[in-house]
Amino acid sequence: MSTKNSPETSARQAPRVRKSPAERHAEIREAAAVVALEEGLAAITLRRVARQLGVASGLVAHYEPRVEDFVAATFARIAAADRTEVEQAMAGLDDVALRLRAVLASSLDSERLPVTAVWVEAWGLGRRNEALAAAVREEMDSWQELLRNVIRDGVRAGVYSAPDPAAVAWQVLGMIDGLNAQALVRWEGVPDRREHFLSAVEHLLGVS
Amino acid sequence: MSTKNSPETSARQAPRVRKSPAERHAEIREAAAVVALEEGLAAITLRRVARQLGVASGLVAHYEPRVEDFVAATFARIAAADRTEVEQAMAGLDDVALRLRAVLASSLDSERLPVTAVWVEAWGLGRRNEALAAAVREEMDSWQELLRNVIRDGVRAGVYSAPDPAAVAWQVLGMIDGLNAQALVRWEGVPDRREHFLSAVEHLLGVS
Repeated sequence: MSTKNSPETSARQAPRVRKSPAERHAEIREAAAVVALEEGLAAITLRRVARQLGVASGLVAHYEPRVEDFVAATFARIAAADRTEVEQAMAGLDDVALRLRAVLASSLDSERLPVTAVWVEAWGLGRRNEALAAAVREEMDSWQELLRNVIRDGVRAGVYSAPDPAAVAWQVLGMIDGLNAQALVRWEGVPDRREHFLSAVEHLLGVS
Repeated sequence: MSTKNSPETSARQAPRVRKSPAERHAEIREAAAVVALEEGLAAITLRRVARQLGVASGLVAHYEPRVEDFVAATFARIAAADRTEVEQAMAGLDDVALRLRAVLASSLDSERLPVTAVWVEAWGLGRRNEALAAAVREEMDSWQELLRNVIRDGVRAGVYSAPDPAAVAWQVLGMIDGLNAQALVRWEGVPDRREHFLSAVEHLLGVS
């Protein structure tokens, strides 16, 4: 852990600068995201996050009094940041088919495995944490919307002929989620699974 | 817990019957499966399983000295039993299209949610337990084979025109795994997702 953000250190080296509540809360959420990506959502406790930041547990409890909500918010932060990265990978691409390929390729990127692990854990924990389940559903809706919009653009441009972009979008999301979960145990299915996946999706989209 | 299988009780009520090592081991594996389905794979410890059976931890340790292998074997037992049920749901159906629909419908049955939860947990834990990861890959291969065989039968019967049954099989498996994981947090996507799924699969199979 870096001591850069430790309040004790700053107190010795420089006049204490009181952080605004918003800054402090953001810092706590960010520390929780780091813990979740390294050790899993189940590792999120007031004590563990306080240790990560070098502050007292009571300070974390002040901002995050309910662990269920804290876990849900941490999931939401990780998932939204990841989705934003995928959106950026496709931004600036004019060709709609290339945009969809960029989304699909980056959603299956093996560098995303730590994020996938958080998703997989969230599906399991969401059975007993309703705040988390709600956050997971909301994030799935956002992903479905992202995919639906690209597909709809392609239909409008005459590149795709999918009659129901919303339905295709959730089928594709199901495949992404399943393939990523399988990748956690290094199951490759067929060697060229990514190429097969892209071609299956384009088939669903009516690309001949 | 029922006391029916407690050795102390049997000792009081009846002459002690020494169980064969195979019987004892099967009993231990079965108890672990019960614990995993109710509390998760992470709950599998020598102590917890011993308590479930009403025996000493040392007896469980004698049969299952490595917890990683014990967890892997428990996953394998649960997954294989579940797959056998799905296979039975399709056995006896002559019509290949009905057989595939029976497999898909029972694989998405909401009564399978506890088994899905075990799968989802296994993908996560498999990152750090190689024996478990191997068991998960092996079970995924069996599922892929099951689907591939039905699809191949359909192609032979002229019902499907899929050029590559093996590739379609893993795409379908990816969708099943993703849709089931999503169902854990009660995400429904579109209201008629099961019907959409079946029609998407038949589309992949070249059914017009």
